[in-house]
Amino acid sequence: MSVREPKDAPAIVLLSGGLDSTTVLAIAAREAGQRVHALSFAYGQRHAIELRQAARQAARFGVVAHEVVDLGHLGKLVASASSLVAASELDVPSASARAGHDDIPSTYVPARNTVFLSYALAWAEVVGARDIWLGVNAVDYSGYPDCRPEFIAAFETTANLATKLGVSAGGAEGIQIHAPLIELHKHEIIARGLALGVDYAETVSCYDPVEREGVALACGRCESCTLRRAGFEQAGVADPTRYV
Amino acid sequence: MSVREPKDAPAIVLLSGGLDSTTVLAIAAREAGQRVHALSFAYGQRHAIELRQAARQAARFGVVAHEVVDLGHLGKLVASASSLVAASELDVPSASARAGHDDIPSTYVPARNTVFLSYALAWAEVVGARDIWLGVNAVDYSGYPDCRPEFIAAFETTANLATKLGVSAGGAEGIQIHAPLIELHKHEIIARGLALGVDYAETVSCYDPVEREGVALACGRCESCTLRRAGFEQAGVADPTRYV
Repeated sequence: MSVREPKDAPAIVLLSGGLDSTTVLAIAAREAGQRVHALSFAYGQRHAIELRQAARQAARFGVVAHEVVDLGHLGKLVASASSLVAASELDVPSASARAGHDDIPSTYVPARNTVFLSYALAWAEVVGARDIWLGVNAVDYSGYPDCRPEFIAAFETTANLATKLGVSAGGAEGIQIHAPLIELHKHEIIARGLALGVDYAETVSCYDPVEREGVALACGRCESCTLRRAGFEQAGVADPTRYV
Repeated sequence: MSVREPKDAPAIVLLSGGLDSTTVLAIAAREAGQRVHALSFAYGQRHAIELRQAARQAARFGVVAHEVVDLGHLGKLVASASSLVAASELDVPSASARAGHDDIPSTYVPARNTVFLSYALAWAEVVGARDIWLGVNAVDYSGYPDCRPEFIAAFETTANLATKLGVSAGGAEGIQIHAPLIELHKHEIIARGLALGVDYAETVSCYDPVEREGVALACGRCESCTLRRAGFEQAGVADPTRYV
């Protein structure tokens, strides 16, 4: 999808503070030149420390506004079904335990991206943003259904039917959901972000990090850590991640 | 859409405590015989008193569980764009001020039904419910884009692509969004609810009610009050609503 004019049009970026979403922030702000409204969620995730990195990245890329929405209730509602939330009794599986499995892992959070995009849509309607960006990826990823291109396309259709902005604009000029990383390998994402000045040392990807003296230390064992580490190797750059 | 077997399958019902959603609760619980998980939202609406009625109706119809999700942040995010939230400086327009206008009124809450349905979807995934019910109506209604059949159909498609439940079931056996009132006139909704034992005195429809001595008094002036009053007239039954 091409980005609309004018270049300084308002946009919403879903920002977790991880590697992918920070790269998308750089693309939206620096490459597309949009006026970014960054949106993060506190939903009781084990890796809530990522929210601090999200705030740092939002500041670094000069966003117009950064909202952190409290969805603590969502975390409680899904705790029995997802190991990614701290209230869950499930453990985050190691990448080796996941190897060879192509099922949906326990780190999947039910309907997470649908909820996140719905919130983004509400804010988009308020600030007049017709571009919503997010860092989903369907290549080097954990197999979540709501990271696939067909989900993104369906949500875009829904968004244009759901809102005043979509109804009044109609068709091609309506709301666009941008997922610029969706077909990229992790090392390609890293190369793209580095070219745009992303400091990956200040991003958190680990599903279950430990905080020590104010620094987030990645576990190095979960699927997200493994995908990230392999990405740096394949990109041929030093991995700046701090591990336990 | 036909309701699936077994009759006691789990289901999610979006329950505001108003006339429409209470009727849908009666249909899901009594007519379809499903095990209802009722879901309400506190989003800073002016008519938060409706939540107390929601709890009463949930108890009356013997739901399995009733969750009230705090979406206060959503209310703040959209306050500048919607007169329906208490934090807004906009006034709820009277029905007469709205007469003849076919635009989307200020009582529209940006992306509200998308956010609500997304939450319902998350809970559905957790409890294994493949039926989600809501009381949207596209006949005697306020012209909100997210109350139209094409929105509901698009969300259903999205829901089936977004979730483990949808992906594993696939196609016709997947998640269904039931909007049984969508093509009904208000008086038909009332007749259907009365036949199922709904006590409409215990429902709140007003966009801007006043609470006096523990009782919700409807303004009688807003579009929702006007549609409701006309519905009782056309149904040929006494209007049990208590007005200011």
